[in-house]
Amino acid sequence: MVGIIMGSKSDLPVMQEAIDILNELGIAHEVEIVSAHRTPERMFEYAKTAEERGIRVIIAGAGGAAHLPGMTASITPLPVIGVPVKSRNSIDGWDSILSILQMPGGVPVATVALDGAKNAGILAAQIMGVADENVRKRISAYKEGMKDKVLRDAKLI
Amino acid sequence: MVGIIMGSKSDLPVMQEAIDILNELGIAHEVEIVSAHRTPERMFEYAKTAEERGIRVIIAGAGGAAHLPGMTASITPLPVIGVPVKSRNSIDGWDSILSILQMPGGVPVATVALDGAKNAGILAAQIMGVADENVRKRISAYKEGMKDKVLRDAKLI
Amino acid sequence: MVGIIMGSKSDLPVMQEAIDILNELGIAHEVEIVSAHRTPERMFEYAKTAEERGIRVIIAGAGGAAHLPGMTASITPLPVIGVPVKSRNSIDGWDSILSILQMPGGVPVATVALDGAKNAGILAAQIMGVADENVRKRISAYKEGMKDKVLRDAKLI
Amino acid sequence: MVGIIMGSKSDLPVMQEAIDILNELGIAHEVEIVSAHRTPERMFEYAKTAEERGIRVIIAGAGGAAHLPGMTASITPLPVIGVPVKSRNSIDGWDSILSILQMPGGVPVATVALDGAKNAGILAAQIMGVADENVRKRISAYKEGMKDKVLRDAKLI
Amino acid sequence: MVGIIMGSKSDLPVMQEAIDILNELGIAHEVEIVSAHRTPERMFEYAKTAEERGIRVIIAGAGGAAHLPGMTASITPLPVIGVPVKSRNSIDGWDSILSILQMPGGVPVATVALDGAKNAGILAAQIMGVADENVRKRISAYKEGMKDKVLRDAKLI
Amino acid sequence: MVGIIMGSKSDLPVMQEAIDILNELGIAHEVEIVSAHRTPERMFEYAKTAEERGIRVIIAGAGGAAHLPGMTASITPLPVIGVPVKSRNSIDGWDSILSILQMPGGVPVATVALDGAKNAGILAAQIMGVADENVRKRISAYKEGMKDKVLRDAKLI
Amino acid sequence: MVGIIMGSKSDLPVMQEAIDILNELGIAHEVEIVSAHRTPERMFEYAKTAEERGIRVIIAGAGGAAHLPGMTASITPLPVIGVPVKSRNSIDGWDSILSILQMPGGVPVATVALDGAKNAGILAAQIMGVADENVRKRISAYKEGMKDKVLRDAKLI
Amino acid sequence: MVGIIMGSKSDLPVMQEAIDILNELGIAHEVEIVSAHRTPERMFEYAKTAEERGIRVIIAGAGGAAHLPGMTASITPLPVIGVPVKSRNSIDGWDSILSILQMPGGVPVATVALDGAKNAGILAAQIMGVADENVRKRISAYKEGMKDKVLRDAKLI
Repeated sequence: MVGIIMGSKSDLPVMQEAIDILNELGIAHEVEIVSAHRTPERMFEYAKTAEERGIRVIIAGAGGAAHLPGMTASITPLPVIGVPVKSRNSIDGWDSILSILQMPGGVPVATVALDGAKNAGILAAQIMGVADENVRKRISAYKEGMKDKVLRDAKLI
Repeated sequence: MVGIIMGSKSDLPVMQEAIDILNELGIAHEVEIVSAHRTPERMFEYAKTAEERGIRVIIAGAGGAAHLPGMTASITPLPVIGVPVKSRNSIDGWDSILSILQMPGGVPVATVALDGAKNAGILAAQIMGVADENVRKRISAYKEGMKDKVLRDAKLI
Repeated sequence: MVGIIMGSKSDLPVMQEAIDILNELGIAHEVEIVSAHRTPERMFEYAKTAEERGIRVIIAGAGGAAHLPGMTASITPLPVIGVPVKSRNSIDGWDSILSILQMPGGVPVATVALDGAKNAGILAAQIMGVADENVRKRISAYKEGMKDKVLRDAKLI
Repeated sequence: MVGIIMGSKSDLPVMQEAIDILNELGIAHEVEIVSAHRTPERMFEYAKTAEERGIRVIIAGAGGAAHLPGMTASITPLPVIGVPVKSRNSIDGWDSILSILQMPGGVPVATVALDGAKNAGILAAQIMGVADENVRKRISAYKEGMKDKVLRDAKLI
Repeated sequence: MVGIIMGSKSDLPVMQEAIDILNELGIAHEVEIVSAHRTPERMFEYAKTAEERGIRVIIAGAGGAAHLPGMTASITPLPVIGVPVKSRNSIDGWDSILSILQMPGGVPVATVALDGAKNAGILAAQIMGVADENVRKRISAYKEGMKDKVLRDAKLI
Repeated sequence: MVGIIMGSKSDLPVMQEAIDILNELGIAHEVEIVSAHRTPERMFEYAKTAEERGIRVIIAGAGGAAHLPGMTASITPLPVIGVPVKSRNSIDGWDSILSILQMPGGVPVATVALDGAKNAGILAAQIMGVADENVRKRISAYKEGMKDKVLRDAKLI
Repeated sequence: MVGIIMGSKSDLPVMQEAIDILNELGIAHEVEIVSAHRTPERMFEYAKTAEERGIRVIIAGAGGAAHLPGMTASITPLPVIGVPVKSRNSIDGWDSILSILQMPGGVPVATVALDGAKNAGILAAQIMGVADENVRKRISAYKEGMKDKVLRDAKLI
Repeated sequence: MVGIIMGSKSDLPVMQEAIDILNELGIAHEVEIVSAHRTPERMFEYAKTAEERGIRVIIAGAGGAAHLPGMTASITPLPVIGVPVKSRNSIDGWDSILSILQMPGGVPVATVALDGAKNAGILAAQIMGVADENVRKRISAYKEGMKDKVLRDAKLI
């Protein structure tokens, strides 16, 4: 199962794309609001118990000085995907990107593009697909669908 | 198996850290030089056949206008981890980071920190661990080792 | 003939300026949607066959982690002009610029300004003019026209 | 008492300046290595108990994706001063600065300049001085000393 | 008492958040418009007399080449909190941030996030709380309130 | 013929790579020092007469506020390739890049990577190849050579 | 007399502030549209004859790869004030700023803030005031006026 | 007379170039160390009395959060030239540049390039030349000398 967490309700419009694509690809997931800065114990608890609760990949979205993905990764042995969210007062998103991406040696966060929740969902599916050929087939089919859309667009101009 | 590719022999000193940590964590891997810009057919071939050759995660390192991770991800359904390499003539690494990180919707690259090949290796292990409890245990043990080192350092000051 | 390609239908409003100026300067051209990330084989095919199909210059526009210009340049011996497009979710255009501009030694992309499709068209015409004095004359006339417009504006203030 | 923490032994050369100035200003302090990413429980414990152990201000230094100052601030009600350290692999210090400075509403970190541990120490003394006129006098004297040094230098050129 | 100053009436909408939170936390404060560049003598007078007038912490907000926080800090021995304001014509806030944050050794400014006046108010309260357990309790209660809000939000999705 | 100009003798070590690759590809060229800022008349004269003297492409390298490529392009109808040079006192090369790349509509400069003189030479050859199949063949051969080198490197690791 | 030039009619809304303040301060001036890139001869002529026509200071505003201030400064011995204009397609103004500010040794441009035409006008007046005590008095009076406005604003909050 | 001030003795190696060129151009000048942050009263005194002491232009150099040029400009009606100095701990010079350049409307600083003290000296001479034809002639001669040097270099390659 994929666990999706975000620092604030205000991140939901961005993070919804991860939920949607996981639904489309048929990957089980759960969604929680977990704030590193306002509910640090809840974050610890979430990360500490994620593996035993059956979660295999975590997607964490946050903006500004975004500590949720990195702190979660410091606690769990599971792979953590970080989504830099361009929040209000963010400095063009640079703060979110750098505070998620530039993790020290030993604690990786798999960072995707600014507001790239859709890609976070696909990446989570790809990771689940490592041990599940059916998932890999669905991802290949999804990629075929993208190609077909480009080819259709190409005929229209 | 983890496939490690890099754009140039000059990326090897950085990418060696991915090889070392995969050895330490006991994860099978292979290493290749594959240049998106100088051997595009080879890159296509590599990405096209990776899944059927038994590779489950790809780590791709490149510098400057770094297209290898993203192009590999466009061809294979496997998860691709991108390592931005701070090459000679790079503009402080910004070029490598942005051309790996900012992939369009549909084609994620799991980006790690600048020159963060070690973290790419750990992330690849975490991904392999999704279906292998033994690997997850080794990662947990590795994290314990990091903690012990900090605690020993803490006593010295 | 000039070949114009772009990564997505959404790049067309920007890239239209290249089409318009080539029309104005009387340079033959064709337009295609070719996505490096969603239709990599199509991109390969396009670049591989461009020279034999009579194309002499390629204009490629793309946004974000923009790999289309550089990958096309890696496959064809023809000169490739890259247009960084400031797409949605782009980080102020820096990602497009750096992933087009900072190509490694051996594979140049002639990069123009952010959203600078008009200049890409003029540059393509200038390149075609290397072997065609008539084209050079039309470019000189175009430059005279720009000068006249400034002089007319100068009289109005 | 001032509590000084840093993410790694390698931050000590920078953080030593905070220790030195607190010694010079006669402010009691303790120093610990506490890593947000490698010893998260230790960090929690440190921050949770700081107030009851008599600490009144915390100085936290860290580099890269620097989460130690912000996470500490999320747990303790005490004021936290953050020192962005320009670590190896840092992107010119921007990552440390932004991941310390850009905290969300509700959880401030008093950020000082890149590698500005000396100023962190002075700021901690100023904060202790809020309730201690003697400390304020020592700070005023320190400022006089700086002025005198400039005036002496001014005579030498 | 906390002294709040700002460079211009136009900074008030941002700085109001500092006033509001200090009201909420029950911390005495006064508000003044003091421009480093247009009323330098007034700034000197303000900073010179702040301590004797009973002020214990100063919050200074300014935009662009923001000299008010640093100049105030150069004159008073009190702790100064700087709020970078993203003013009209600011270059995305970078100018305000860097001209407040990057103070030389000897003269710290406790810098908060861009437009982070609310956090400046909380930080001022934390500083006042160094010698006032009641204030510390109110801050702890404020933090509990934030946590509760997240938990309520968490139940809604 | 290709005309190579540079703003200062100090740019020669960077620009030499353009000369070398043009020699290797057998493209006629001439080299001049022409400073936009210190010899503006000379620059005007150079650009004004370039076409009639048989030059078909101009490569212009300059650092800092680099005006030579753009000003040359404003005077001649020929295609101009700009090489941003990372000079002493340059701000990491950003100044050179932006003052060459961001030309207004109507006056393109074909910009290559920072210190990318080699690519400028290859691009000039590609442009000359628009009307010369032999040149295109030499470029294709050059690309084959690059591929072979990667393949040889690939065998060594 | 102060000569005001700008690259395009579209710069007038920004540059009008220079005209207005020079009117307010009673400094003679003339305004012209002179484009470095579209009317290079006109720019040369303007700069070459400025001194003999009685101009003593030049204000030059331009956006993007802004060459007008620096090129004018390369031709005339008069002081040149550069106004970086944040034009459409500018990269947040960085291109204008860097291509005006970072002039090589020997050819200064007195650069003011982004869109800072008002300050360019005041600076031109200050320069004219070097030899004219009356102008200096008017500038002092202008500064008093600014101070009074702040003091009035200060009373309103 | 030109007044040269700098924030610290450590700025002298950079600022020496201003002294040298003023000597070369025969412009009277005086040099002082005046720190905005460590000797604010001295700075006030300097700026307040500069005009009556016969100074007509001020050159102010400073690094990091560089407030000296802007604060001096806020006090004196004289033109102030700011030299951003790339000091130790500076973030590649961006902090110095932005805190000098981005002055608010009403208080200009004539900013030159990073470490551009030589250009500050030339600009000061140009400003003195507004009312002194002899100075203007010396500047014209200086420019001729630069041109001759380029032409000599041009013959050597």
